[in-house]
Amino acid sequence: MNGAPPLGRIRVVLCQPSHPGNIGAAARAMKTMGLGRLYLVKPKSFPDPEAQARASGAGDLLEGAVVCASLAEALADTVFVAGMSARRRDLSAPFCWAREGAQRLLDNAAQGEVALVFGNESAGLSNEELALCHLAVTILANPDYSSLNLGAAVQIMCYELRLAVLVAGPLAVAEAMPAPGAEVEALLAHLERAALASGFLDPSQPKRLMLRLRRLFARSRLEREEVSILRGLLTSFEKQKFRRKT
Amino acid sequence: MNGAPPLGRIRVVLCQPSHPGNIGAAARAMKTMGLGRLYLVKPKSFPDPEAQARASGAGDLLEGAVVCASLAEALADTVFVAGMSARRRDLSAPFCWAREGAQRLLDNAAQGEVALVFGNESAGLSNEELALCHLAVTILANPDYSSLNLGAAVQIMCYELRLAVLVAGPLAVAEAMPAPGAEVEALLAHLERAALASGFLDPSQPKRLMLRLRRLFARSRLEREEVSILRGLLTSFEKQKFRRKT
Repeated sequence: MNGAPPLGRIRVVLCQPSHPGNIGAAARAMKTMGLGRLYLVKPKSFPDPEAQARASGAGDLLEGAVVCASLAEALADTVFVAGMSARRRDLSAPFCWAREGAQRLLDNAAQGEVALVFGNESAGLSNEELALCHLAVTILANPDYSSLNLGAAVQIMCYELRLAVLVAGPLAVAEAMPAPGAEVEALLAHLERAALASGFLDPSQPKRLMLRLRRLFARSRLEREEVSILRGLLTSFEKQKFRRKT
Repeated sequence: MNGAPPLGRIRVVLCQPSHPGNIGAAARAMKTMGLGRLYLVKPKSFPDPEAQARASGAGDLLEGAVVCASLAEALADTVFVAGMSARRRDLSAPFCWAREGAQRLLDNAAQGEVALVFGNESAGLSNEELALCHLAVTILANPDYSSLNLGAAVQIMCYELRLAVLVAGPLAVAEAMPAPGAEVEALLAHLERAALASGFLDPSQPKRLMLRLRRLFARSRLEREEVSILRGLLTSFEKQKFRRKT
């Protein structure tokens, strides 16, 4: 599963991952966002049952993972490389935040293969590794505790990539059938009759109560079925015999 | 560490988490983004060494976690609740994507405590749990494999919250005082009593009606004064003598 273009042109490269569980988590994170191409540079243990377990339903990405002896090998056929960096460094590539980084990757995917590179869990990317990147990308995090788990960092970046591809405009959502104005009016009239009959509404000062209820219903954007339920309830209240002790 | 306002007003609630490792991962994800308040509803195992291990440097969030017997208890003092949902459902709250959901949480944090609720790893939030939410939030994912790990979902939402704070647009316009969750619950209980007493609600099949009403009120974001009006009206209906000809 390589994902639809342009996501299909983006590979995720994990450099020297120490914990096989994180490889599995990264695979799962990628697949949930429609990315499918995983590269592993000198993984400490791979394949590994822990990676399989954490990958959950993304085992196919592990099976298709490309294991490389060096980062340069993993990047050989790419036209653009972004490397993750938790902090600014003197020797790093130009820097941007995650959202812009995702956009830059996509822009460059129009021209060929691109890579998103993550460093080792403890050490991050070395200066030598980052020197192979065209862009250093940082996830904006809590300055007092910026220690993102590797799988979590992969998840955020893949999420940003998917959004960058798919956010073409606001997504319309089909809602339930709204009640026409006349039905809401009839409900309000019914409510007013019931409130008068019960003595709750003082006919000498009726306005504010009905205005409040009207405002509430307008804001609620009542559905037809809800109007029907509320009117049934009111009818039931109107018809009830007095059953309680006062 | 509660995080600076408004992040300090946002609690993350995990409903019935099955795997203690995910609790730890959620705590770590929260802390990396500056959130500090974790609530656990009926966790299968907590505290647990696996949670500690996965929390890494966020053990303080586990120590400060509030364990609750029900979701309602975890939400009692909140004015706004967003619940994660992997899919659209007939009876769900209004729906939006993660980025807008984060913005809505922040907007509402201007008025009081707000909650972001995650369901069980396998089952997600039940319809009953989602009915306690004002908004259902979905992370845009691969339709062929949308199975985000719980910790990964927490990571994405906390990331969006942090970004929303830091790229903060204009602050929300002050609205009327929203009713706290406990007052809305009391209104629903009152309504249920009245509906039972009037015979409208069939005790042998009570669930759907109350779920519909709960959903309507959640969507309406009831104000305190409105709750007060509705309860007054109900009391008046309950006490009324039978005044009409049948």
